Amino acid sequence: MTDSDAVIASLRAFVAERDWAQFHTPENLAKSISIEAAELLECFQWDADFDLDDVGAELADVLTYCLLLADKLGLDPDAIVTEKLAETRAKYPADVSRGRSTKYDRS
Amino acid sequence: MTDSDAVIASLRAFVAERDWAQFHTPENLAKSISIEAAELLECFQWDADFDLDDVGAELADVLTYCLLLADKLGLDPDAIVTEKLAETRAKYPADVSRGRSTKYDRS
Amino acid sequence: MTDSDAVIASLRAFVAERDWAQFHTPENLAKSISIEAAELLECFQWDADFDLDDVGAELADVLTYCLLLADKLGLDPDAIVTEKLAETRAKYPADVSRGRSTKYDRS
Amino acid sequence: MTDSDAVIASLRAFVAERDWAQFHTPENLAKSISIEAAELLECFQWDADFDLDDVGAELADVLTYCLLLADKLGLDPDAIVTEKLAETRAKYPADVSRGRSTKYDRS
Repeated sequence: MTDSDAVIASLRAFVAERDWAQFHTPENLAKSISIEAAELLECFQWDADFDLDDVGAELADVLTYCLLLADKLGLDPDAIVTEKLAETRAKYPADVSRGRSTKYDRS
Repeated sequence: MTDSDAVIASLRAFVAERDWAQFHTPENLAKSISIEAAELLECFQWDADFDLDDVGAELADVLTYCLLLADKLGLDPDAIVTEKLAETRAKYPADVSRGRSTKYDRS
Repeated sequence: MTDSDAVIASLRAFVAERDWAQFHTPENLAKSISIEAAELLECFQWDADFDLDDVGAELADVLTYCLLLADKLGLDPDAIVTEKLAETRAKYPADVSRGRSTKYDRS
Repeated sequence: MTDSDAVIASLRAFVAERDWAQFHTPENLAKSISIEAAELLECFQWDADFDLDDVGAELADVLTYCLLLADKLGLDPDAIVTEKLAETRAKYPADVSRGRSTKYDRS
């Protein structure tokens, strides 16, 4: 069992012990990801300086909800990231994209 | 090497080939996580129905930027999720939190 | 009739002509505000430079959903902003807050 | 002077008294709008029920940063909403859009 398998097993146990699966619809998890992503962004609200512990804790919250959503949908996080990376590679070939952020944000 | 190690190695190669590390400051990655989280939320904008492929693709984008930010900061995704889970366990004991979402969102 | 009254009257007519009030629950409008706020943020994803027309168009989308939500809830936009400003004034007195962003973001 | 003019005058005074204009770059205001939009969304995180006072207070925060950004950019909020509405009217004619949310979210 990889570390990732152990993590998702721990998350499942945590949710089951509290009977919280009833709140974890895909829609509510998607809202939660946006909410936590904004708390992460808040670490950088007024400037680029940041506290590493704060950023790590907020990033953990975003990741937690992402893992819960992937698990709810039967998706493997590593697999979907790898698949999407293959698509992005095709869309932004290295030779024409080098050093340019133009339209990189239009994914 | 676990799958997760392979994924982050692929992401690093992808970024290096395009010389995009210059855009990937922690602040910009945090902004990107919020932006992609909102694209995921858009799958549920008007109702709870969703297309699994669309949701998987958008979730992959959120995860990708989360992994890039963790890597940039030298944080292990599994480790920070596990550490935060231990804190949340202490904050929301199973016996008093069972079946209640109250204040669960005030993390 | 002030300009603001004319704007909300136009928005109401637009929604009514399309029979879209059925989609405009408070929850869906709140999701929409987050989604449009992220599109605005996307104008600044990789650097602080921006295109004024793009920013204006995205800001207009955020404002539109804010006005629709206020109208749905029977709230006057000017009144709630003014009321909140009075609270924020009390929370951050000018003499102790001058030139400091500390905790300003913890509202 | 309309109510809206009085509101923006109050916001300007509030910012000036605290010397906070230095933090209010367009980019930082855009981040702040996303952050406050997520706090509004949090009112609906686990279900569609909500507390009107909480929603009003969070909506006020989103509106406040929207007004500050518009003011910073020399844009009139009512004018940009009206202009965008005209474009949206052309994009979604009433007769073909009636009662359908399809692609309405792809603005």
